[in-house]
Amino acid sequence: MTQNTPPKLITAAILVIGDEILSGRTKDKNIGYIAEYCTSIGIDVKEVRVVPDDEAEIVQAINALRHKFTYLFTTGGIGPTHDDITADCVAKAFGVTIDEDPRALAMMMERYKQEDLNAARRRMARIPAGADLIANPVSKAPGFKIGNVITMAGVPLVMQAMLDDISAKLETGVKMLSQTLEAGGLPEGIYGAALGDVAAANAEVSIGSYPSFKDGKFTNQIVIRGRSESAIAAAAKAVQDMVANLTADKNPL
Amino acid sequence: MTQNTPPKLITAAILVIGDEILSGRTKDKNIGYIAEYCTSIGIDVKEVRVVPDDEAEIVQAINALRHKFTYLFTTGGIGPTHDDITADCVAKAFGVTIDEDPRALAMMMERYKQEDLNAARRRMARIPAGADLIANPVSKAPGFKIGNVITMAGVPLVMQAMLDDISAKLETGVKMLSQTLEAGGLPEGIYGAALGDVAAANAEVSIGSYPSFKDGKFTNQIVIRGRSESAIAAAAKAVQDMVANLTADKNPL
Repeated sequence: MTQNTPPKLITAAILVIGDEILSGRTKDKNIGYIAEYCTSIGIDVKEVRVVPDDEAEIVQAINALRHKFTYLFTTGGIGPTHDDITADCVAKAFGVTIDEDPRALAMMMERYKQEDLNAARRRMARIPAGADLIANPVSKAPGFKIGNVITMAGVPLVMQAMLDDISAKLETGVKMLSQTLEAGGLPEGIYGAALGDVAAANAEVSIGSYPSFKDGKFTNQIVIRGRSESAIAAAAKAVQDMVANLTADKNPL
Repeated sequence: MTQNTPPKLITAAILVIGDEILSGRTKDKNIGYIAEYCTSIGIDVKEVRVVPDDEAEIVQAINALRHKFTYLFTTGGIGPTHDDITADCVAKAFGVTIDEDPRALAMMMERYKQEDLNAARRRMARIPAGADLIANPVSKAPGFKIGNVITMAGVPLVMQAMLDDISAKLETGVKMLSQTLEAGGLPEGIYGAALGDVAAANAEVSIGSYPSFKDGKFTNQIVIRGRSESAIAAAAKAVQDMVANLTADKNPL
């Protein structure tokens, strides 16, 4: 198979907004979820940032990341309380107005009676001008997409439902594929040099070595990532040969 | 109590380095741990970034964050394999040389025999010039601190041991205290406006409202954060009064 055309790459960043993540009170569950989701549909997450509930910091991060990547996913800060300032920050970053959006109010009225749509709840219908809405089947108040910025809730179940709604409308590229190999009980320090040689000889893929520590000992996995199945297979063969050789060295007949 | 001197604030950022976090293969466990740890000792984490195993991206992030905050904690990329490039990136960011450090080798020889210190393992003894070492009681290969940058392993148990070693040597500020109140079953949309008033009237603290979704319904917590116990107590009283009033409104006699 010839590969003269470089594969189309679609990239993304994730911006997590919230003091509660930075204080450690709430342990983020969205970064890993969005990252894995994006990888599975052919979007490469290239950067993540977490910033506090501070307008200047949020606007600066939105502008830095939306210009750098195909998409920017934000999570958090679109609820009904005073500390929910993400929608305003997105509007400010894009230099557009923000107002109550009749489409958003209509979605919310699937859940709320007219008389229950008080000022706080109507805050959740404030959408930057020009944005498309993202459905929220869990609690109705929508997320939105403006330009390449996708603004979602922070509550994981709501965020996940919004991601399902918007993902079908996103451009995706050639999927990053991966193959995970066990290092056969070898320590990283034993195969480090040889693995570096394998990586250098298989430049079409990227090869990572990932130790984990459990019950007092390390176990290691070697992960090969790339967009060509044949290149991954070739590198996997080289890694398996390397592990077999080193294992034989350690256990000579 | 008069408070004429503003409290000393010590800030930090966390930089997580690793393709495996951005692909979603590995779910980060270090951000939440470091954030909570820092909060408990009087260091405010103000920003987090995750970047890939890419020299230019790592160096740029190190320089952006080390100039912005009192401390920068990095995790990941200091093992013995070719994809472990963090130490070199830190050296590059500081414009210093990097070489095998006899102190690091000595630490590693508590675990390895001389003849087992091969080229890959010796990579872990490469330390930027001028850095202090951070002990690693788990697997011996040290982390290091240069200037205000603290470079630690990515494996959570190793990172946690390194954080224990270095934390006693860090400057800490007045601790951020917090009090968490249950919202008494009230929806955020019911107390949103009133809570905004409480927040505006208690500007010495920051007040956040945090919904979580479980078993088909939201439950909400209100968190008051600040550095003065009396200011937190006053705000907590105001929040409790607010919840009681709104609950009485909902359940009139």
